[in-house]
Amino acid sequence: MSFKINQEIACCGGKLLKLSHQSSETKTAMDVNIYLPKQYYEEGITLIPVIYYLSGLTCSPQNATEKAFWQVQADKYGFAIVFPDTSPRGEKVPDDPEKGWDFGLAAGFYVDATQEPYKTNYRMFSYVHEELPKELDSYFNKENTKIDFLDNVAITGHSMGGFGALSGYLKYYNRYKSCSAFAPIANPTNVPWGIKALSGYLGSDKELWAQYDPCSLVSEVDNTRQSTILIHCGTKDPFLKDQLKPEQLQEAVKNTSWEGKIDLKIVEGFDHSYFFISTFVPEHAEFHAKNLGLI
Amino acid sequence: MSFKINQEIACCGGKLLKLSHQSSETKTAMDVNIYLPKQYYEEGITLIPVIYYLSGLTCSPQNATEKAFWQVQADKYGFAIVFPDTSPRGEKVPDDPEKGWDFGLAAGFYVDATQEPYKTNYRMFSYVHEELPKELDSYFNKENTKIDFLDNVAITGHSMGGFGALSGYLKYYNRYKSCSAFAPIANPTNVPWGIKALSGYLGSDKELWAQYDPCSLVSEVDNTRQSTILIHCGTKDPFLKDQLKPEQLQEAVKNTSWEGKIDLKIVEGFDHSYFFISTFVPEHAEFHAKNLGLI
Repeated sequence: MSFKINQEIACCGGKLLKLSHQSSETKTAMDVNIYLPKQYYEEGITLIPVIYYLSGLTCSPQNATEKAFWQVQADKYGFAIVFPDTSPRGEKVPDDPEKGWDFGLAAGFYVDATQEPYKTNYRMFSYVHEELPKELDSYFNKENTKIDFLDNVAITGHSMGGFGALSGYLKYYNRYKSCSAFAPIANPTNVPWGIKALSGYLGSDKELWAQYDPCSLVSEVDNTRQSTILIHCGTKDPFLKDQLKPEQLQEAVKNTSWEGKIDLKIVEGFDHSYFFISTFVPEHAEFHAKNLGLI
Repeated sequence: MSFKINQEIACCGGKLLKLSHQSSETKTAMDVNIYLPKQYYEEGITLIPVIYYLSGLTCSPQNATEKAFWQVQADKYGFAIVFPDTSPRGEKVPDDPEKGWDFGLAAGFYVDATQEPYKTNYRMFSYVHEELPKELDSYFNKENTKIDFLDNVAITGHSMGGFGALSGYLKYYNRYKSCSAFAPIANPTNVPWGIKALSGYLGSDKELWAQYDPCSLVSEVDNTRQSTILIHCGTKDPFLKDQLKPEQLQEAVKNTSWEGKIDLKIVEGFDHSYFFISTFVPEHAEFHAKNLGLI
């Protein structure tokens, strides 16, 4: 299906497109932003790689677009960046206000729900990793082949989105060239946010939970490319110890093909905010640019 | 009086302080953010210059702090940046909801009101250009003299804040070393936003209005330093023709000491948003850094 361009905004050397489209996975209209770097508008570029950025709890595609400041990095290296939404939205989408801000709307957790009443719409895993890239490819590349939405791609995200990036990367290891995360929920089956979301969306089957947990997936995925995963967390992040647990991922990779390949940087004084994210976006951009063959 | 540090946030190489203090001008508590660049935390720096950034209609100190992305430039050149609020706030501050979002709260227009019921609190001109710099100097420089809030300073702003920067710069020509503006209301006595604000705060005396209008002030202030004022406006700014009128400032400087010194750049495709601002912040930062003796 096609995209509607709601806004086309000049930004840095390229353009930010605020799009919406009808998703067959979520059965709702979904918003998605994409920044097309200056290279997209230049002659002679054949294929522009794409970084998918998954946002955290409570966010829409707007927050990171406005505050993470990926755009200047996209222009520097020549990648596009896609900002999907964090859940289905709309009147018919079930939500449970009693479950709070960390479940339901804007808290889709990038899984495919199996439980009623969520399983019809909350299919964010298939939406983000399957439907959206294919739809973008089909929409943008009808008349040219400038943006490589499917093959030369990387993934990153913040908090819940950091979890989404890690799980998607490991489950689609042959798809994504690289993965990084800002303050990810690294071991969701073991922390309150994750347990609430996974039990709500997936029920009580902990084997199913494990199929999304980066700490389980790393032992099942062979790191054939000797890939490193870059992760930043701040020492003043109030969620570091109880919700994020990045050290559990380092523990989990011991004696696996990922051992030594989790580049976890605990940075002094930083919190969980976009001020933290935007500070380290340049380092993540350079990391992905290398893996995408841009430098 | 003293400042309360509400938040101290690690950001880029320095720190963002979210402050509040009791203002004797506005007779309210005022929020103000300040970014202290990495140089502030290094040994051996004696005096760090300051750029004051005045925000536009509807904004608080948070918007530009989060979205304009001055911080990385502050670290690059070594200046601090101060983000004042756009009006007094609080239960006792008069507002007139019928006057809309472009008057009253978050729309103080950086003038000293003379009219009831506004004149007691709406003293944003004296607050921004007099009280705040002195209070910051007295607070931060008790134990050191690292930040030069009073002498090596520049001013900039967006929209209403661009007007505030221009009028403050021209009225305090011996104070500010340089001035720039993003999409300023350049001729407020001649456009709906300005007429509404100036008549509401200053009454019907158009001679008083003129004392704030950059287009009047330029003929009264002798450009002894051969100073250039840098201004960016976007061609897709919906307010360009009816509210901003930067070309009126170019017209007004003819046959004055400012002739040829308004560096007005009308940039193709840009709008009025923070995407526009953040795109051109690096150019404004370099402009001010030169005038502040940093490069």
